[in-house]
Amino acid sequence: MKPTRETIEAYYRNLQSDLCDRLARLDGAASFGVDEWERPEGGGGTTRVISGGDVFEKGAINVSAVHGPIPPELGEDIGASGEQFFAAGISMIFHPRNPFAPTMHANVRYFEIEDGSAWFGGGLDLTPYYLFEEDAEHFHSVCRRACDGHAVADYAAMKQACDDYFFLPHRGEARGIGGLFYDRHGDDLPGQFAFQQELGDALYNGYAPILERRRNTPFTEKHKRWQRVRRGRYVEFNLVWDRGTKFGLQTRGRTESILASMPPEVSWEYASAPEEGTPEAKLVDLLAGDPRDWAR
Amino acid sequence: MKPTRETIEAYYRNLQSDLCDRLARLDGAASFGVDEWERPEGGGGTTRVISGGDVFEKGAINVSAVHGPIPPELGEDIGASGEQFFAAGISMIFHPRNPFAPTMHANVRYFEIEDGSAWFGGGLDLTPYYLFEEDAEHFHSVCRRACDGHAVADYAAMKQACDDYFFLPHRGEARGIGGLFYDRHGDDLPGQFAFQQELGDALYNGYAPILERRRNTPFTEKHKRWQRVRRGRYVEFNLVWDRGTKFGLQTRGRTESILASMPPEVSWEYASAPEEGTPEAKLVDLLAGDPRDWAR
Repeated sequence: MKPTRETIEAYYRNLQSDLCDRLARLDGAASFGVDEWERPEGGGGTTRVISGGDVFEKGAINVSAVHGPIPPELGEDIGASGEQFFAAGISMIFHPRNPFAPTMHANVRYFEIEDGSAWFGGGLDLTPYYLFEEDAEHFHSVCRRACDGHAVADYAAMKQACDDYFFLPHRGEARGIGGLFYDRHGDDLPGQFAFQQELGDALYNGYAPILERRRNTPFTEKHKRWQRVRRGRYVEFNLVWDRGTKFGLQTRGRTESILASMPPEVSWEYASAPEEGTPEAKLVDLLAGDPRDWAR
Repeated sequence: MKPTRETIEAYYRNLQSDLCDRLARLDGAASFGVDEWERPEGGGGTTRVISGGDVFEKGAINVSAVHGPIPPELGEDIGASGEQFFAAGISMIFHPRNPFAPTMHANVRYFEIEDGSAWFGGGLDLTPYYLFEEDAEHFHSVCRRACDGHAVADYAAMKQACDDYFFLPHRGEARGIGGLFYDRHGDDLPGQFAFQQELGDALYNGYAPILERRRNTPFTEKHKRWQRVRRGRYVEFNLVWDRGTKFGLQTRGRTESILASMPPEVSWEYASAPEEGTPEAKLVDLLAGDPRDWAR
């Protein structure tokens, strides 16, 4: 049976509550605020932000469920206009304090048009500042296992789509080490929804063990500086290339919710490049090279 | 007589040398590096960056003179394609250390197509973190005086164009307090070139006295934090809305030169708003309100 809008929205809202609880427990020092907001044209959302934590320097989990006439900018993109749409989704991003812990981004979403067509999309990806192969293997292995047993989930295709999407052409670098990415999967909606729920579990299982492993690794100002510079690449991707961010800002979405993804402290240094043979150079080489297969 | 490409390029290069010398003297603690670069399709430039100075936390002055077939992305914009073009310009941005000293951005440029059509464009604008009315009046008065005596320069129109252009729709805020902005002025090329040289002088005269006035104003971490947050708005404008930056990144210009404009240390805080009645709130109110006439 096709899942209803209400069921899907409720799932996203429960996932938000659950993740905020578990991640605040993991952090131990800070918790997620709650901002409810409404969209003038219909619907609204809840933005929950954590900052100044022990693990999380900043993090945000945003749920929205909006409806109304399809905005012109979006209509062009999806080949429909004027009709009513409904869209719901949850998106999240975590910027850890410890530079040896990676940033994680994820979102899952559902879109429906008045004519009855509907689809799911989403994904999750990891952006380390230093490479730990065991972390990359863990994250990708969880991603691959989430696809197992779901006929709608083609791991290899979604891994490839993630590598293709999270790429900065102006830097010739991947944003991070990838994960899963897919969009407009409209076949077998009940199967798609079941897969999204599987992804909901994978988010925590893929990320939390890495945070536990790296949260207390000793670091110096040199490592923080590198983290700030690399966060600059994250900002560049989100503001210059990310379709969701650009669309949100151009269609006058709620700016604070869209930009809750921005890192807390960021630096730009002119033409800074790490010295050969350093862990920093190892990361850059990895991101500038062909994507690797990490899943075990 | 129509100025030649060589004359125009030489003027930009001399202006760069001169400004680097004078501003390094003003700074007293740091100087401008020199990076020469070539464009594979034709031409090149010189990027000069100062950082870690007494006055300038970071600053960049970039000169380029490039030529070749018009890139498709540009051809669409200017209504020509496939033909040969020549473009030269100088652009600069200064991020002072002291949060009471404003950021200044300026650029002047020349564009020519094989069919003989040619035009100038450019401008300068000021982005304070705290408002000092005397600084705003000084800067705008210098701008207005630069227009006096040049038949090609309509101060009111250029002031308005600057206010219109440096605006962040997603924030409902001006980037700063404006200045001058113009593009594609192709009438009376000798007159246009004379006006650009006037602007070259105005850059230093409009900005340096303000830096001298504010460079030693005592500040605390609270003021620096505010400066970092406001620099975030600067990044948002440049990466999301600025035509030059977007064009440069999308056409694979030299990334380090394009992004030399990025501020050194930046923060994003979720939904942070200054308390009513503070100097920080006074700035936000100013930027969210109607542009003011500052010239005396």
